[in-house]
Amino acid sequence: MPDFTDNLKPSKPDGPEILAKERAQSDVPIDELASHLLSRNDFLTRQERVLRVLEKEPLFNKSKQQNLSRPERYHLGLARAKKLRRLADTHGWDAEDQSMSSYLCDDVSPYMVHYAMFITTIREQGDEQQKAYWMPKIDAMDVIGCYAQTELGHGSNVKGLECEARWDPKTKEFVLHSPYISSSKWWNGTMGRTANHAIVVAQLKVPKSPGSTDYVDHGPHPFVVQIRDLKTHKPLDGIAVGDIGPKYGYAPMDNGYMLFDHFRIPHSAMLSNYSRVDPNTCTYSRPANPAVVYGSLTAVRASIIMHARLIMARAVTIGVRYTCVRRQFQDRDSKDRGAPELSVLDYPTVQIRILPILATAFALHYTGEAMQKLYEGTRAQIDKGDFSKLAVLHAQSSGLKSLCTELAANSIETCRRAMGGHGFGGGSGYIQLNNDYLSKPTVEGDNWMITQQTASYLIKRMSAAVSGKGQAEDELEAACRDWLKNGGRSSSSPLPVFDSDEAIVQAFHRRSRYSTYQAYIEREVKKRSWNSMQIQLRKISHAESQSILVTNFFEAITAEPSGISSVLRAHLATLFRLFAFYTMDAEARDFVKANAVSNADLDQLPAKIQDLMAQIRPHAVRLVDSWKVPDFLLDSALGRYDGKVYEDLFNRAHRLNPLNEITFNPYYKSDEIVMGSGSDELKKILAKL
Amino acid sequence: MPDFTDNLKPSKPDGPEILAKERAQSDVPIDELASHLLSRNDFLTRQERVLRVLEKEPLFNKSKQQNLSRPERYHLGLARAKKLRRLADTHGWDAEDQSMSSYLCDDVSPYMVHYAMFITTIREQGDEQQKAYWMPKIDAMDVIGCYAQTELGHGSNVKGLECEARWDPKTKEFVLHSPYISSSKWWNGTMGRTANHAIVVAQLKVPKSPGSTDYVDHGPHPFVVQIRDLKTHKPLDGIAVGDIGPKYGYAPMDNGYMLFDHFRIPHSAMLSNYSRVDPNTCTYSRPANPAVVYGSLTAVRASIIMHARLIMARAVTIGVRYTCVRRQFQDRDSKDRGAPELSVLDYPTVQIRILPILATAFALHYTGEAMQKLYEGTRAQIDKGDFSKLAVLHAQSSGLKSLCTELAANSIETCRRAMGGHGFGGGSGYIQLNNDYLSKPTVEGDNWMITQQTASYLIKRMSAAVSGKGQAEDELEAACRDWLKNGGRSSSSPLPVFDSDEAIVQAFHRRSRYSTYQAYIEREVKKRSWNSMQIQLRKISHAESQSILVTNFFEAITAEPSGISSVLRAHLATLFRLFAFYTMDAEARDFVKANAVSNADLDQLPAKIQDLMAQIRPHAVRLVDSWKVPDFLLDSALGRYDGKVYEDLFNRAHRLNPLNEITFNPYYKSDEIVMGSGSDELKKILAKL
Repeated sequence: MPDFTDNLKPSKPDGPEILAKERAQSDVPIDELASHLLSRNDFLTRQERVLRVLEKEPLFNKSKQQNLSRPERYHLGLARAKKLRRLADTHGWDAEDQSMSSYLCDDVSPYMVHYAMFITTIREQGDEQQKAYWMPKIDAMDVIGCYAQTELGHGSNVKGLECEARWDPKTKEFVLHSPYISSSKWWNGTMGRTANHAIVVAQLKVPKSPGSTDYVDHGPHPFVVQIRDLKTHKPLDGIAVGDIGPKYGYAPMDNGYMLFDHFRIPHSAMLSNYSRVDPNTCTYSRPANPAVVYGSLTAVRASIIMHARLIMARAVTIGVRYTCVRRQFQDRDSKDRGAPELSVLDYPTVQIRILPILATAFALHYTGEAMQKLYEGTRAQIDKGDFSKLAVLHAQSSGLKSLCTELAANSIETCRRAMGGHGFGGGSGYIQLNNDYLSKPTVEGDNWMITQQTASYLIKRMSAAVSGKGQAEDELEAACRDWLKNGGRSSSSPLPVFDSDEAIVQAFHRRSRYSTYQAYIEREVKKRSWNSMQIQLRKISHAESQSILVTNFFEAITAEPSGISSVLRAHLATLFRLFAFYTMDAEARDFVKANAVSNADLDQLPAKIQDLMAQIRPHAVRLVDSWKVPDFLLDSALGRYDGKVYEDLFNRAHRLNPLNEITFNPYYKSDEIVMGSGSDELKKILAKL
Repeated sequence: MPDFTDNLKPSKPDGPEILAKERAQSDVPIDELASHLLSRNDFLTRQERVLRVLEKEPLFNKSKQQNLSRPERYHLGLARAKKLRRLADTHGWDAEDQSMSSYLCDDVSPYMVHYAMFITTIREQGDEQQKAYWMPKIDAMDVIGCYAQTELGHGSNVKGLECEARWDPKTKEFVLHSPYISSSKWWNGTMGRTANHAIVVAQLKVPKSPGSTDYVDHGPHPFVVQIRDLKTHKPLDGIAVGDIGPKYGYAPMDNGYMLFDHFRIPHSAMLSNYSRVDPNTCTYSRPANPAVVYGSLTAVRASIIMHARLIMARAVTIGVRYTCVRRQFQDRDSKDRGAPELSVLDYPTVQIRILPILATAFALHYTGEAMQKLYEGTRAQIDKGDFSKLAVLHAQSSGLKSLCTELAANSIETCRRAMGGHGFGGGSGYIQLNNDYLSKPTVEGDNWMITQQTASYLIKRMSAAVSGKGQAEDELEAACRDWLKNGGRSSSSPLPVFDSDEAIVQAFHRRSRYSTYQAYIEREVKKRSWNSMQIQLRKISHAESQSILVTNFFEAITAEPSGISSVLRAHLATLFRLFAFYTMDAEARDFVKANAVSNADLDQLPAKIQDLMAQIRPHAVRLVDSWKVPDFLLDSALGRYDGKVYEDLFNRAHRLNPLNEITFNPYYKSDEIVMGSGSDELKKILAKL
């Protein structure tokens, strides 16, 4: 309905004017930087191509979806997942295209676990016969699968799972059973409403011999199980399965629960590539586990880091653009009463929240790249089971997953709070981003827990270096040996971190070696208990991960030939220093203790950081532009490329908000909620509680 | 529908058993501690009394509300607000009872701004005639009001507001007008759908004389304005008003937008207790502003801190109970393969996230108490305009608001992540808590911005102390003088913080003085620009706030006579040390620089903190029990008093989740979403996008 607001404009200077000026004042070569960052797997051209398709489909319009209830979001999510799959058929999209379509749609798909864990598990754990049977049905999606491992009572500790699969030699079936409420499968995506099959991970129990009542527990094994009728889509008898209900994020995903009541499945249900039960003799056999998973886990971890960098880029794109457009207060020291208000990004208290995140997105990029290159470069070896090149990186990948997803998750909320009130609003583009991404510090290995894996490896290599027998087993041990040979902490003098970027890298190495060495002394010499050292173990894992991030960043921007223009390289070097110094400042005492940086230099860090931020400030908009996050994905009034922040916020409120179509009766003496409707609405509300 | 899951129990040991054991092993005197913490304004008895009423009303059942859409949440919120008001009439609830009912209901009320800012403003800014006219209508809620100050383009900088009220001497009316989109009122609660009146803050523009076209701008002033028809509840002509749409939290609140198109209001609309425009001469008069607001702001800030402590208590109640019930992994160093799994709260990596929050809730309590006592004790003086006692505390309250709401907001997410997967689930009790509370670091003064007010005062007092003329103006200046007299940083030797609690307090003082002194040198001696110092200013504000928290905590537990039993006092002293050391450890270099604590002692801090946590661990459940947060408010399966965590999670999923009542068609080739419904659902979804 047209009204007097239709002709109103924002006061000047408006967003488009401000961003145009920001873009004009910087020499950041956007296209060069974009292709530097986003060429892998043709990311940029793929994004363009898939985006053009999605933008045309009304089903992918995001502008009002925040008004939907969680059950409605599942309806929508399923409709979108179907549509994406049909579009894939129509346009001949490959797997990468399909991932891209899901990334741009930005709804976690109810088919997600089918596409990922379900297929992967059948492929890796099924024998040839099983693969031949299942794969065609899976590809056609007649079979829609999920992966049921985690239970209500057990997540991280897989060995503690309670669901059991007991072999019945008489009927030659396995009996799946959930003895307790706490044995209920829980959290498993795609299972709640969508899947008709599941990989069920259960404790395999086999009688000692066909006639015995004495069962041997062989630990958790995967079984493929039909869970719903293929026609009615109702759960099969003996199975209770459903959706676990609303969560923090992931609204369109049907994370599920499932219990079995002595549910029988055939011998062929047990995925038997690696282990099997002989149906006649009850003999259990398990070949030495060829650690194929080892390599692919590294690839998964690399992709988590590559994803984390895109999340940070997205958060900071909104952050930078809006804090330029947003103006508040004149300079307190200015004598000109008519001076224009400052862009809030001109305030150091805003810069210190936004610009280190920008620098960190780059840091994550180079480490993600390094991991993927190393993985791809040694793929042939990996396939043969030779992990000598990958072993260190794999061990380190736990710590990197922990640190990088933590940095990314925190960056969204840090940006959001730096936006002031509008950060809390639905037009921020941060709500779903935050709610969904906050799962990452917990899934694929809880961030606090998995640092123990990295720490354990670090201490082992330091132990080996101290004993000093034979050749160093890997690069990490060699580095520990070098550090020890040079006298450890005692013989070195602090590094001149303000004089050379290489000194910065060395400082991070030295700090990590020293932290590891201290932990080694505690554990191996003083024999402290593992659990009592957990907090320290997390610190040494983070110290090593930070060292890796700094090293890969440095190496990427100093490599020759780099193919990077000198203009771009100068900007990247500034971002490198900001990331390194900001990280160093937060844990400054560590660097003193390791004799890596002097107290005097550390005292100068805050001023150096502020200088670096001042250098980056004029280029901030072009730097975030280079990440090429499309408006369609941002779904943010604050972060729009064109800067029409206030127009968009107002449009969402005044024209797109369904609540404004209803007139309410606000008087408390009346039961009537909607004006003129009597007490019907109240009854409807009560029925839903 | 009954099924085989009805008879299942969790595996042993189950939650009730575990919590019973936890409660049996501790000597924390729960009732003594509860009345020590919660006697002010009869909090505990009031909570009991109001709770009994709400628990009986189906409208306040929270168990399924997470499934509602945001528009439905407003419907529900309005229904609940009406019901609460009717219950207040029925039960003769006073204002405190009504606050309690709203706190327990845990929905932000669509009437909230009516009850608070609207009434307060009329009362404080209206003249006698205006109050006599408005107050009866307000009390009867025939007039439902909101407070429209913040605009789309201006929040913190009130002087920059664009909405204007131009005096028309001919018609003797003010003309309210919003010249730009960015002038739209924005965020104002209760305005979007509920209110029929508003306090509108607009730039007052008055002609120099009745015939002049030359206007004088007198800055922002409040006007009371009818905005909707009292019968139809439709906006009046010339006003565009509505709800701004979904936000991070605050789903039941109709935060609104509003614009005026040359909307005329009578002379009597301008609230005239402090300033007025003569309708005949256009003369503007404003008496010297009696700083009444000054005192009440301190009371508001004290209540924000008291609220923050309840938020932390709530977060950590869930955190402690669930991390006791949750068991995962055996002790890695244990040789007993059959050893039970450990409660996750036994792991230091979980303790370090949960227990400092428990200690911080107490720290906030004593500072909130101190502020309220000081305010009440000097009320008579305040009412006479003598703020000598309150002045320091008032200045410090900005920094405290910033630090305390930051600590509380972060504590929710820290607890949530420490819960593992279930922290992400709807049964955690953290989702709405987090979403709603995350507004607090931004509202009532943005947390980063307002630290400048405290810093400014700190530097002023240090300046005065350095110049040393006459008597010290307040306690803060006296403390600065003492510190200077004793030679500042240079003459002191580090304090023995492990030997005496008093030394801890002194260390925090010394660190705050030194930080302030450094900032004073930068600003007053070296004349650095204010903006370039912002990051440092925030740090000195936080240093002072931490010092206040530590001091008040220490004084409360050492006061004589205290009325605290020696058993309780010992527990409080442990919590005090944990809070102080944990805070100190996070900014350890500061304490070295101030010569407050030695490097050697700081190196020992992590071990001391771990010791303190081990001391608190066995008492954690009884310590959180003492905060008496009712299950009704927690709305958390994880945090239930009785420990029936898994039963409750399962019940929410299996019996209370409306999504499980629907069977879907998961096959992508079909447009059908709900099995058997054809393509109707898809059309319904599209209509909502």
